[in-house]
Amino acid sequence: MNSAYWLTNARLESGYEVQDGVITGTKTEIRHLFIEDGKIARIVDSNTIITDEWPQQDAKGLLLLPSFIEKHCHLDKTLLGDRWRSVTPVSSIFERLDIEKATLPSLGTLTQERAEQLLQIYLESGVTHVRTHVDIYPEAGLDNLEAVQQALRAFEGKLSYEIVAFPQHGLLRSKSAELVRQALRSGAGLVGGVDPATVDGDIEASLQQMVELAVEANAGIDLHLHDAGHLGTFTMKRLAQLTIEAGLQGKVAISHAFGLGDITASQAEQMGELLADAGVAIITSVPIDRKFPPVGLLHQHGVEVAVGCDNIFDVWSPFGNGDILERVSRLAEVSKWVDERSLAQTLQYITGGTTPLNHDGEQVWPQIGDVASIVFVQASCSAEAVARRSQRVATMFQGQIVSGSL
Amino acid sequence: MNSAYWLTNARLESGYEVQDGVITGTKTEIRHLFIEDGKIARIVDSNTIITDEWPQQDAKGLLLLPSFIEKHCHLDKTLLGDRWRSVTPVSSIFERLDIEKATLPSLGTLTQERAEQLLQIYLESGVTHVRTHVDIYPEAGLDNLEAVQQALRAFEGKLSYEIVAFPQHGLLRSKSAELVRQALRSGAGLVGGVDPATVDGDIEASLQQMVELAVEANAGIDLHLHDAGHLGTFTMKRLAQLTIEAGLQGKVAISHAFGLGDITASQAEQMGELLADAGVAIITSVPIDRKFPPVGLLHQHGVEVAVGCDNIFDVWSPFGNGDILERVSRLAEVSKWVDERSLAQTLQYITGGTTPLNHDGEQVWPQIGDVASIVFVQASCSAEAVARRSQRVATMFQGQIVSGSL
Repeated sequence: MNSAYWLTNARLESGYEVQDGVITGTKTEIRHLFIEDGKIARIVDSNTIITDEWPQQDAKGLLLLPSFIEKHCHLDKTLLGDRWRSVTPVSSIFERLDIEKATLPSLGTLTQERAEQLLQIYLESGVTHVRTHVDIYPEAGLDNLEAVQQALRAFEGKLSYEIVAFPQHGLLRSKSAELVRQALRSGAGLVGGVDPATVDGDIEASLQQMVELAVEANAGIDLHLHDAGHLGTFTMKRLAQLTIEAGLQGKVAISHAFGLGDITASQAEQMGELLADAGVAIITSVPIDRKFPPVGLLHQHGVEVAVGCDNIFDVWSPFGNGDILERVSRLAEVSKWVDERSLAQTLQYITGGTTPLNHDGEQVWPQIGDVASIVFVQASCSAEAVARRSQRVATMFQGQIVSGSL
Repeated sequence: MNSAYWLTNARLESGYEVQDGVITGTKTEIRHLFIEDGKIARIVDSNTIITDEWPQQDAKGLLLLPSFIEKHCHLDKTLLGDRWRSVTPVSSIFERLDIEKATLPSLGTLTQERAEQLLQIYLESGVTHVRTHVDIYPEAGLDNLEAVQQALRAFEGKLSYEIVAFPQHGLLRSKSAELVRQALRSGAGLVGGVDPATVDGDIEASLQQMVELAVEANAGIDLHLHDAGHLGTFTMKRLAQLTIEAGLQGKVAISHAFGLGDITASQAEQMGELLADAGVAIITSVPIDRKFPPVGLLHQHGVEVAVGCDNIFDVWSPFGNGDILERVSRLAEVSKWVDERSLAQTLQYITGGTTPLNHDGEQVWPQIGDVASIVFVQASCSAEAVARRSQRVATMFQGQIVSGSL
């Protein structure tokens, strides 16, 4: 496709249908979009007769949605493309860590191959941005980082990404600070971590080390925090404090943050305010085998919340398929978001906050100047796409179709 | 396909792989099956050279699983095939009932069409037996029963079924006993019901009426019981008593039975014994927006448990896709059943208890004489099929391919 062209017959949401004060549906309209240098340069009515000579690509009335973001995955852990394996029962996370450490290097497939298989699934499901963790620990050195970077290079021009240098075996416990430092110099943009209490055994020292590494490398932070109840929220509070002290607001995320699901709603509201003040985001994989953070409540309190698939057939879980739209549909189902607006707004958790209509039903996407990263969906509206996990026909990244076809 | 033929190169599970006392995988073997009059008449080694003249159908090494049972659906409620609709917020179940009563007859599609669309999805997903509820209430009379029966007739020879005469608006509340009686004379095989406490307002009278209708028609019972906590378990206990008194053991099921998810494990164990003694089965749709019965615990106590999809895009829920294997995979995920055997045994909840290997890893399916109702799956074993919701390539009902192809 040329650097400039018309994307014709694109279905855009234009407002909510309201009956007796209740939102009952979504209105859409067909538009022609002029795409130039990967951006949406013009949007015209579908009655407009195009008289110029630019090429035309017919979107055939498919619904346009902002392309999706996978905010939490482990490209170096998936077993996709390898043979079936169930999960070996263990009695502690440390046993699981040992099994993973032994299993992954012994597979008949390469980390890079498996990562590419997962990236392809992401593209097909509408994802054009991925945040991946990569395991960093002494025995592996930077091998996982390099393998994942190779896979990502194979998808150059198809999606963007962020890499978290993740000391899976404990930043302190596995003495991986220096390796994480190297990873940050080698392309990783965020410092990872895991359970400062139960894995590292020292909340304060673990968090201090993470923050120090982040500040030093001008990097972000994305902490895996499974620690439950008040152990979890205590850790979050301390990280929020350190975030403010280090001026890292807006660059720190806590993945899983199970503790927020274990406390009362009023306690969660307080935590929400605290996290919002510190600019600390929450990332959830919407687990169904335990409680997880109250996404709607946190969002209402100004916390940035995102959804990621996390485990996709790995040593930790035999489930997961890499369809982030399915995962956010699960969030809606768990949260009982079943009405038109609630379903439509659910999309924000996999688009970095963007939805075609805002809460009041005003069209806010796409706007002139927006990057043309778009999913073309066989659906009548966002609400349907979320509830029905509608078919993704094609994915566009910066103006180029990178998966499927129109 | 002739009434007798060879089904060659069929992959059957033959045992578990055990390493250091831990089940780590599943062994399979390739066999040729001779199918005669819809049954498996012979099973021979794949080295056997077939010298007779019977036709041969090559299963190409696909895994064979016993075909699936959808134990709880509403063929007359789905909106599949109609336009997208989200769910209108309501403040009580009675409002929802009114909306449904108004919506369904107003659709641009026929009940029969929508039911057929769902039945087709079931076939493709491996289902060859369906238990459907059909709404029975004064305004509708037996219309839903008749429409669903027409749809089922279109699938004659492709699947078997049971119909529950379901007084959705309350057996007593909507004064539908006489209509249910008529439905039982017109092809329904079970008496339905819903929340004797909160919908009918009189547990005793409601249950008595259900049992009376069932005894009179020599029918079974399948009660929708959403009533929570001890209200639910009280109702279950009473139904169990009445079941024994009426000699209906083995013919009674309680769908949803949410109350069992709200009580302690030791209370649930007592309930399990009580239900097992009374031959009362539990059917769950594995909801993720509330607690539901502890399936593993109930099974251990001898209760027959089955899974059904229930809502599949209807006036009650915008979610659900009719893939019963996906639904039982969700059960495994919620229940943390991630090891090889647990995953493999999960299959029993959608096969009426049948699994290729029993708990000890002995091959128990297929046996000579078993009806040849089979799903052909792109998987290496049951555990993989459950965890990965593997592709269903074809579905066979009584020896005939009824969906897909080999």
